[in-house]
Amino acid sequence: MPQGQPLTVPDDGLSTRARRNAPLLAVHTGAGKGKSTAAFGMALRAWNQGFKIAVFQFVKSAKWKVGEEAAFRELGRLHDEHGVGGPVEWHKMGAGWSWSRKHGTDVDHAAAAADGWAEISRRLAEQRHDFYILDEFTYPLKWGWVDIDDVVEVFLSRPGTQHVVITGRDAPQPLLDAADLVTEMTKVKHPMDVGRKGQKGIEW
Amino acid sequence: MPQGQPLTVPDDGLSTRARRNAPLLAVHTGAGKGKSTAAFGMALRAWNQGFKIAVFQFVKSAKWKVGEEAAFRELGRLHDEHGVGGPVEWHKMGAGWSWSRKHGTDVDHAAAAADGWAEISRRLAEQRHDFYILDEFTYPLKWGWVDIDDVVEVFLSRPGTQHVVITGRDAPQPLLDAADLVTEMTKVKHPMDVGRKGQKGIEW
Repeated sequence: MPQGQPLTVPDDGLSTRARRNAPLLAVHTGAGKGKSTAAFGMALRAWNQGFKIAVFQFVKSAKWKVGEEAAFRELGRLHDEHGVGGPVEWHKMGAGWSWSRKHGTDVDHAAAAADGWAEISRRLAEQRHDFYILDEFTYPLKWGWVDIDDVVEVFLSRPGTQHVVITGRDAPQPLLDAADLVTEMTKVKHPMDVGRKGQKGIEW
Repeated sequence: MPQGQPLTVPDDGLSTRARRNAPLLAVHTGAGKGKSTAAFGMALRAWNQGFKIAVFQFVKSAKWKVGEEAAFRELGRLHDEHGVGGPVEWHKMGAGWSWSRKHGTDVDHAAAAADGWAEISRRLAEQRHDFYILDEFTYPLKWGWVDIDDVVEVFLSRPGTQHVVITGRDAPQPLLDAADLVTEMTKVKHPMDVGRKGQKGIEW
């Protein structure tokens, strides 16, 4: 359903056009499913608008996102070969970041997470992409591998109109405070509670 | 993050394999964002597994899902032309269902919703698709345009391994009772609360 009109008109001196182009910092948190899935769904819209998309997966194993990755690689190829939609980059911490000399080796997770954030921070400064997904990024924040104050400062001062979506449970409060959009996914009922297994095409 | 092991092993006489292939009925409800978006994200996985996907949009105007629709039409074309992923059908109530003689005319919404459900019910009986999204389907249920008891009976008795995802606010209790997976998307903070507008690549 269309989301309707804003509840208030802000006294921020911005035109409607400027507000329309305001960069979004979104956080999908909570214990329910759909945090990452909704982020990838958002990326479909961004892709269709020709936005430059970059996904950074902050997990050791990425086996649960193979479907999304395969689909986005095909969408990225449609851009590269036929000029449809936007370009797509997909980076995984699991096997060492693609840009890192430590690629493919058994990296230290804390150091790898810090490397990932340093690279994202550089790219934000350069306005390299239009739409960033930092998948499961709340975990390195929670574990102190990446400094939350630095993260908030980089997001709040990023130039241009770069949109960022962060997923993961237990998003720290300073991140929620900095975010424009926070959605909590709450588990109401889950098949694994009654002993069902993950399924092809559903869980991966 | 991987979801880990089931909490219990059910005493249902099914093998792990049978449980792995159990058809899923999922409901994404709540007042937050991401209900439809997460459903389309799930469909990326299903597409990557070669599942036959069908989307049915139960809204008058579909302008807010154009990005997802465009991306899935491209993914469906990749299947049709190159055999990658699964086939995709995308049906909208807004302009009259594609299969209906009333297509393109100013249809009665209640009748159109009932027609949509009747068609979906037939397709479920025929096992026409593997993965169904009934987008915003809770509204015709809420408004009594489609009978909830009939819907629950059709879902619970559907043959094969057809997965169904239903989105929309205020999902009726009998639907939640019948569902295997229920996720509630809760709005914690939303930019429109402070007067920001919907944005290209984010809202559509």
